[in-house]
Amino acid sequence: MRRIKITIAYDGTAYNGWQKQNNATGIQEKVEKACESIFGEPMTITGASRTDTGVHAFGQVATFETDKQIPTNRIPHALNAHLPDDIVVHKAEEVHEDFHPRYNAKKKTYRYVINQGEFHIPQYRFNTTFIPQNLDMEMMQRACKLFEGEYDFKGFCSTGSSVKTTVRTIYSMDIQKQGSLLVLEVTGNGFLYNMVRIIAGTLIEVGKGKRDLKTVEEAILQGDRNKAGVTAPAKGLTLMKIYY
Amino acid sequence: MRRIKITIAYDGTAYNGWQKQNNATGIQEKVEKACESIFGEPMTITGASRTDTGVHAFGQVATFETDKQIPTNRIPHALNAHLPDDIVVHKAEEVHEDFHPRYNAKKKTYRYVINQGEFHIPQYRFNTTFIPQNLDMEMMQRACKLFEGEYDFKGFCSTGSSVKTTVRTIYSMDIQKQGSLLVLEVTGNGFLYNMVRIIAGTLIEVGKGKRDLKTVEEAILQGDRNKAGVTAPAKGLTLMKIYY
Repeated sequence: MRRIKITIAYDGTAYNGWQKQNNATGIQEKVEKACESIFGEPMTITGASRTDTGVHAFGQVATFETDKQIPTNRIPHALNAHLPDDIVVHKAEEVHEDFHPRYNAKKKTYRYVINQGEFHIPQYRFNTTFIPQNLDMEMMQRACKLFEGEYDFKGFCSTGSSVKTTVRTIYSMDIQKQGSLLVLEVTGNGFLYNMVRIIAGTLIEVGKGKRDLKTVEEAILQGDRNKAGVTAPAKGLTLMKIYY
Repeated sequence: MRRIKITIAYDGTAYNGWQKQNNATGIQEKVEKACESIFGEPMTITGASRTDTGVHAFGQVATFETDKQIPTNRIPHALNAHLPDDIVVHKAEEVHEDFHPRYNAKKKTYRYVINQGEFHIPQYRFNTTFIPQNLDMEMMQRACKLFEGEYDFKGFCSTGSSVKTTVRTIYSMDIQKQGSLLVLEVTGNGFLYNMVRIIAGTLIEVGKGKRDLKTVEEAILQGDRNKAGVTAPAKGLTLMKIYY
């Protein structure tokens, strides 16, 4: 059996997240069905990250096993021929049989994009969050720096996840202005359920002047969900890259 | 009567172009209906540019007349409340009664975006044209410069348009790499039917090495549609700005 690692980009707008669900279409299911079409047998794929409904990816990673002899470098084109336009497999590599896309992930980078202006730009409506108010970029940049480091991020986690520890390390976090877009990029060793969206929601409150840096620091240090900001909308979030 | 000039952004994916048509929905019709909803009377709006099916805009311009006393600065928000998510009015200004959005336009800027890479990026599928081959940027940049100036562009015009003259001036034309995107920007005093898409199609052929700069020059100077390239897909094209 070969273990194949694939890298997938998708526009999550039309899907109920990555994971297979009852009564709702997940991206995983679409990729699994494409695998079954090309390999001609029932397949199970394992994803690295369970992205939520409406969240996008440039670099989701998944694995599956097969003993069929399709050359690895032909797999992306073969799968894409069976995938809808909003899911594209970019890469396939043969990996060691011990490789696990979730447990072996060392770092992940997420991007959260805000479209800030008086009016929304229709071209960006599916992959940015529109904020009509002016946001204070300098304060948001300073707030970013407070998140860098190892902390117990349990205040930045929605209920409903079961994890052994809520301690995570954020290696870098930055927000940059690109035209009318504010692009938040955060890299860490792992992220809790809704963590990036709660971080983004907290930063937006800082940008609006609704909270100061002291309350951000308190939210990080006290681990109290009520001290952190609201969960920002899913559509602004993209899983950019997973490092192994 | 006040004459109102509005500036409109739209994602053209879902529409059969700007113009009102039988058996197909144009963007003009959507804006007209929104105007009728807020002003409570039949309205006719006049657009600056008849963008084709699938073509987008950041800065389409249109005018209408009304004697209703809605303050001008309230008009964009009022219209947007009656428009779908893919059409957004950004600006409203009162203009002189002689102002005509088409005849008074001095310059227009269009952008044509190519997503160049081995695989398409799903987030860009509605507003870029995907070219899987490697394109020679240096040759494409040199080809851009050949278009600058006043020429009879009848070789870069699809049949079906009736214009007095096919002479147009291109003030500037450039192509830049932005990550995996190649962004062509062209500003001129006016553009013939499909002109930017035929220019883009010709440049793509240059980038692929299928034609050299001499044949581009010939296509410009000889005004023969058969000498120019294919018409590139509509979805890569965006009307950026109209100057008055």
